[in-house]
Order: sequence, then structure tokens, then C-alpha cells
Amino acid sequence: MNEKTKVVPKTPRGFVEYLPEDQILFNEMFQKIRSVYERFGFIPVETPAAERTEILLAKGGGETDKQIYRLAKEGEEISLHFDLTVPLARYVAEHYDQLTFPFRRYQMQKVWRGERNQKGRFREFYQCDIDVIGSNNLLVDAEIPSVIYDVFIALGFANFTIRINNRKVLNGFFEHLNLSELSKDVLRIIDKIGKIGRESVSQELQSLGLKKDKAEIILEFIEINGNNADTISQLRALGINNAIFVEGVSELEILCRYIGMFGVPNDCYKIDLSIARGLDYYTGTVYETTLNDYPDIGSVCSGGRYDDLASYYTDKKLPGVGISVGLSRLFFKLREADVIQPNGSTLSKVLVSQLDTVYLPNCLDIARQLRQKGINTEVYFESDKVSKQFKYANRLKIPYVVIVGEQEVKLGKISIKSMATGAQQLMTLEELVCMVKKSEH
Amino acid sequence: MNEKTKVVPKTPRGFVEYLPEDQILFNEMFQKIRSVYERFGFIPVETPAAERTEILLAKGGGETDKQIYRLAKEGEEISLHFDLTVPLARYVAEHYDQLTFPFRRYQMQKVWRGERNQKGRFREFYQCDIDVIGSNNLLVDAEIPSVIYDVFIALGFANFTIRINNRKVLNGFFEHLNLSELSKDVLRIIDKIGKIGRESVSQELQSLGLKKDKAEIILEFIEINGNNADTISQLRALGINNAIFVEGVSELEILCRYIGMFGVPNDCYKIDLSIARGLDYYTGTVYETTLNDYPDIGSVCSGGRYDDLASYYTDKKLPGVGISVGLSRLFFKLREADVIQPNGSTLSKVLVSQLDTVYLPNCLDIARQLRQKGINTEVYFESDKVSKQFKYANRLKIPYVVIVGEQEVKLGKISIKSMATGAQQLMTLEELVCMVKKSEH
Repeated sequence: MNEKTKVVPKTPRGFVEYLPEDQILFNEMFQKIRSVYERFGFIPVETPAAERTEILLAKGGGETDKQIYRLAKEGEEISLHFDLTVPLARYVAEHYDQLTFPFRRYQMQKVWRGERNQKGRFREFYQCDIDVIGSNNLLVDAEIPSVIYDVFIALGFANFTIRINNRKVLNGFFEHLNLSELSKDVLRIIDKIGKIGRESVSQELQSLGLKKDKAEIILEFIEINGNNADTISQLRALGINNAIFVEGVSELEILCRYIGMFGVPNDCYKIDLSIARGLDYYTGTVYETTLNDYPDIGSVCSGGRYDDLASYYTDKKLPGVGISVGLSRLFFKLREADVIQPNGSTLSKVLVSQLDTVYLPNCLDIARQLRQKGINTEVYFESDKVSKQFKYANRLKIPYVVIVGEQEVKLGKISIKSMATGAQQLMTLEELVCMVKKSEH
Repeated sequence: MNEKTKVVPKTPRGFVEYLPEDQILFNEMFQKIRSVYERFGFIPVETPAAERTEILLAKGGGETDKQIYRLAKEGEEISLHFDLTVPLARYVAEHYDQLTFPFRRYQMQKVWRGERNQKGRFREFYQCDIDVIGSNNLLVDAEIPSVIYDVFIALGFANFTIRINNRKVLNGFFEHLNLSELSKDVLRIIDKIGKIGRESVSQELQSLGLKKDKAEIILEFIEINGNNADTISQLRALGINNAIFVEGVSELEILCRYIGMFGVPNDCYKIDLSIARGLDYYTGTVYETTLNDYPDIGSVCSGGRYDDLASYYTDKKLPGVGISVGLSRLFFKLREADVIQPNGSTLSKVLVSQLDTVYLPNCLDIARQLRQKGINTEVYFESDKVSKQFKYANRLKIPYVVIVGEQEVKLGKISIKSMATGAQQLMTLEELVCMVKKSEH
């Protein structure tokens, strides 16, 4: 081979992969999110990476068409999914008769979007979704923030805000202003206020044809602030009689009361009338979550209620609520901001070193027993000096090295070197098991 | 929407997805394999679904070219990976300086092959790989069967055989027969003996130009049988002095002794001289694993030792050993043969039912406390009759339903209905936690 030209080993642009230390950290976060989802009784679903292209494009929309990766192959037209909501809709429509409703599913998979890649925006990334399908009950809307709360607590955050709003409040308000026909555009514009600021929103609203004072009314509306009870009072004090508006305000009020009942602390959720969410299929409650100490990251978990999940694939009416954590982006941003740090390049807790092949059977036996006790253990097989074996443990950050020689075998004990302190101790296998398990907590 | 034509909700041909009950079962198997891999100190690696096409095709080979899914998009030529070995080679070559060797990695991901799909052969399927890279030590070869052993024990099998062979034994034997130039073809043919039978192998060998008696010599050779010590004796008794052959036999002998030392029972591993493995990059030990009670499934875990993993991408010499469990195919075959059965469509252990919204705060509080104790718990939010709530629990196979009414609140206790027995008991939350945890084992 050496004469031949080598192919340069590199990943495609926009596709990220991690070194082991980061992969381990990523997997830990992934597992924590999954555990919370399972704790709440969400059921795992996994759909193929590819869907028939007509499924993905059923909604129409040029953006999607431009973004999806088509799989070039004769036969069926198929493409990689660009989110997990469309596959869910297809899944529920396809398997409707075999599912039990309300259907609580979680789905944590990679999705692909062939967009121009920027830093922190990937062409391949994980989404971690939950949805409850087949329920109109507001308690379901109220449970979602308690799941979000447990997720971010599990991920080690304490200071975050789950922002909630209700599309009916916004739509009713626009109807009241005789702006129903423009509501989609207005929603899209006000959704950007966090990014582009007040002035730009005002100008974009005016470029829709709104008078300046009407743009100002909208801005003042979405800037209504205070604790949740205050906000509700201010909304009521507007004296708007539009039926949709009144229903939305009432839903928001009940929702806030319920969320508290679910055990979410008061300072963790907040009505924010500027939250609109881009997607036009939301019809009720909408959510966004921000880490208060890292506002630049933007929303780390968002979603909302929809009236009809799978209208492109079935006549069955499927109302529901769902949210998504964009884990790849969150991970990238947190690592970039040094908020999270890896803690070693292996999951091994013990390295069994080898001084002399005479003791190989003892070493293998110790490793086997440790594994049976649930301790990740590897054996150093190369015939290297013990200093090199320690170096290996140090590089990977394996916390303990087992040493077995003449003395240890004679005494029926094991020497343990703690790589953190350098201290070496003679102990029984049971003592070692206890020590390692204790150090894991 | 109702007037519009619906898009038929169906998955692409050759792409499989499961209903929740099977997804849960699949995930359990996935998790068991992963746990064993981690127990042995293998490090998680995940690579992008797509690689630059020239990486995938570096080895050349028309089969691969025909099978890969290219992602149609301007810019880089990229395609979905068709296995995890090529991405591993690229990964190790790309990140060589940042990895610690011997590098023990596991990787469990989907791979894609656009081949004509048959039953049990999918276009998208999971591979569960381990490799140890950067070691020539035969102890590494010997550890692999102990990992395979633990994997299949964890999956609930007791009766399986890890078949081992050594390419040097085969290649040395062919050299001795002056068949070196044909060795690739001969390997490919004898590898099929389990599928096509003795007579067909003989005929295919003859069609390579071998005399019938030479084909017979090869057949008799690969049919050498007996316990491992017998097989080694018979190989020695052939009196072949070819250096590669002698080295291979010696490696096989040492390997067998080592495997026993790793704790693999004698009846679980066996020298089988007909195991050749199709891929031509294996250079030493090769493995195949068969479930003795389900021989039709074929090999459920195979692999081997190679001299040079990443020669297409780097000058660095990377010898190693690796195996792969084809989980999607294994799962399909085991389900088809009814060897494994799902056990419910949810991971929830407790459903908190609702009799009256007056007790909603109590219900939510109980659910929260159960979750904190690590019990997957969901609350029934719809205002349905209790019989419908029980039906929901029954359909999903949620084992326990919590009932909270006036009496329970007054006594500070909870009524539990066991869905398996129908028995209803009044108990404290602590007693409920104990009961559920006990029932999980």
C-alpha cells in the first residue's frame, strides 16, 4: 500500500464527530435525557433514517425541499428525515390501529439537513423529542414543563426559564386588531424579537403594511411583563372580548396553576407573550426554554400543542403536545462555553496491570470478578514496563490500577494504586469493589 | 385537509421499524450488548452516518460501489456508511495523535446498504462492533471470545459455539498445496460449506482448475474434527513444514489455552477449520458464532484479526482484532423463530389513575415521588371512567395502577391494583416502592 496515494481521512463538512472524552460526555447527557423521558412513561420509538420523499414533502414548502438529502438510487424516491415530527406523524398514521392512545412516545435520533453549515449548526444532529398524541387535555400541556424541568435538573442546570405562551392569545389579539390575515407573518416577525431587537421588529411589522402605532400596540402587547398572575391580570385588563383571545388567556391561567401543581418551582416558568414559535402547525400552548446564565445559546428546548399531527397522511384527527431538545447544538454550545468538561477518555474504572505472565491467570480472574460486580475493568495485555502501563491509565484517566505479583498472590490480596493520589494499598477484592463503587458516587 | 389526497403512510422498502413492544425488546438487547462492551473497557465511538464517498470506495470493489447510498447534493461527494469498519479506519487515521493505543473502541450504529432486500436482510440495520487496535498480542485475540461469551449469556443464550480458526493455518496449507495464487478464491468457496454443502464446494473448487483429489484433500482438511486438543494433534500429524502453517497451528494452540484462562467454558469454543470469513483483510484468528439450537440463523457474531486497519488512509501500521454482532438481523430471526417475545408496550411500571380532579394534587405528588425513587410512572389525565383507565393499563401492560380517593387520602395511604392478579391492596408509598422494585427482578 505504501506506494499508493492515501485518501485523506476527514469527515464531511457539517458532520461532527467526537473524540472519546467528548463522546462519553455526550452519551451521558443523552442517557440522562432518556432516563427522564422514561421516568414519565414515554415509550421509545425509532423510525428509519429515510422516508419516502413524498412523505417528507407532503406539507410542501421550498425550505424543506432544499434541505433534504435525497438518496440517489433507482426505485423508490427516498430521503433522510430532517426532523422527528414528520416521521412520527407518518408512524402514527401507519400504525394507528396498533397503538394505544393517548400515545406517549419519545424518540432520540439523528436528523439531517443539507443547509449551509455554520458554527454550531450541523448537517447531522440529534433531536430528543417527546409527544403525547391523542389528547386535548390541558393537563398534558402542564406536564410538559415538569418533564423539561427534570431534564435540565438532570443535566446539572438550576437556573433556567421555561417560557410559555398560547397561540390563541396571539391569534385572538391579532383578530381583535383586524390583522388575522397577516397573523402568520406577524408571528414570524415577533418570534425574532430576542434576536433582532425591538426596533427591527417594528420596522418589519410596518413593512407588512401596518401603521407605526399598530406595530407599537403589538410591541407593547408582547412586552407585557410581570409574574404570571400579573400578566394574566394585564391581559384581562386590556378588555378584549375576542372569543379566541379570552379562551387563550383562560388556558394560560389554568396552565400556570397546573404547572405549579406538577411541582415546577415558580421561578422556573413564565408567561412570555413574545414566544410565537415559527412553525405554523402550533395551535395552543407553546414553549421555549432558556438557560438564564447563557442567554446567547437561545432556546434549548421548545415545542407546543397542535390540533392535528398527521393530516397529510390520515383522516384521523390527532391533537397533541410535543417538545424537542436539540442535543447536538446544546452540547456544542455548552462545550464551547466551557460549561461542561469531559472527565476522561474511557469508562473503565480499573486497569489490571501485568508484571509477569506467571500471574496472568490471577489477573484474568480478578478482572472477571470485578466485571461480575458491575465494575468496568480492562486488562493490560502488552508486555510493557509497569511505568508504561501507568501512563496508559493516566492518559485515559482510569482511576485505579490493580497490581498482582508474588506477594499479592501469597497473601491472597491485591495491590491497588489510586491514579489520583498515587497511593498504593493492599486489600481484598471485596474491599476493592467497595472502594470503586463508593468512588462512583 | 380532508378534501386533499392523503399521502400513503408507509416506510420505504427494506427499512424496518417496530411497534413499541418490539422496540422496547430491541432496545433491551441493544443495551445488554453495550453493557458487556463497556464492562470490558471498550470506549464508545460514534461516527457520522455519511462519509466522503472516496473514503468508502478507497478499497475499490464493485460490490460496495453498487451498494452505497450516495447523498445527492452539490458540493462534496458523500454517502451513507455501509459498515462501521471503514469509518473506524478513517477515524483512527484522522485522530491518530489524539488516541491512546491499544485503542479499545465499541461502536453501535445503523449502517445502510442499498442491496436488493430479502426477508431478514435490511437496507438499514444495526451493527454492534468492538475492535482493539494497535496490538499484536494473542491475548487480545483470546479476550474476544470471552466478550462474545458474556454478550450471548447476557442475551439469555446458554447453548452457542464460538468457532475459531486462523488464516495462517489455511494460507499455509494452501501454500503447501501450491495453491497460494488461488487462496482467495478457495477461501471464498470453503466459507460457503455450511450453506451449499460438501458436494457443491468440491465442484466449485474443481471449476477453479483443481483436480478432484486436490479438492478432496482440501475438504478432508476443513472437515478435521474433534476437541480442540485433538484438532491441533491432527494438524501436527499432517507433517506439513510450511512456516506459515506451523505458526498458525501454534497460534491456534496457544489461543485455545488462553481462551480457557479467560473463563470461557470448554464446550463454548471450538476450532473449525472451515471458518474462513469472506473479507480478505483478515490475517490471523477468525471467529464465527452460532446458536446451537438455531443453526439456520447462521453466524450471529463474527470477525477476526487484521494486520493493517487503515492502510488506505495512513502510513501508520494498525494491527488489531474486531468482531461485529449484526443485531437487526439477529433480532429479526429470533422474533421470527419466536425465541424472544415482547413483554408489554411501555416502560411504565405504575399508572396513577384519576377518580376525581379533587385528588389531582395527591395524584401528581404520588407520581413525582415514585419517579424520584426511580420508578417509571405516568398519570392518566383524561377524564375517563376508571374501567377505561384500567383498559389502558392492560393494553400497555402497565403492571400496577394507583388509585387515590377519599378513603386513601383520609388514611394517608394508596390503593394499588395489580393488573396481573386483579388484587387491590391499601398500602403506604414506601410499601408500593418496595413492591414495584421487587417485581422488577
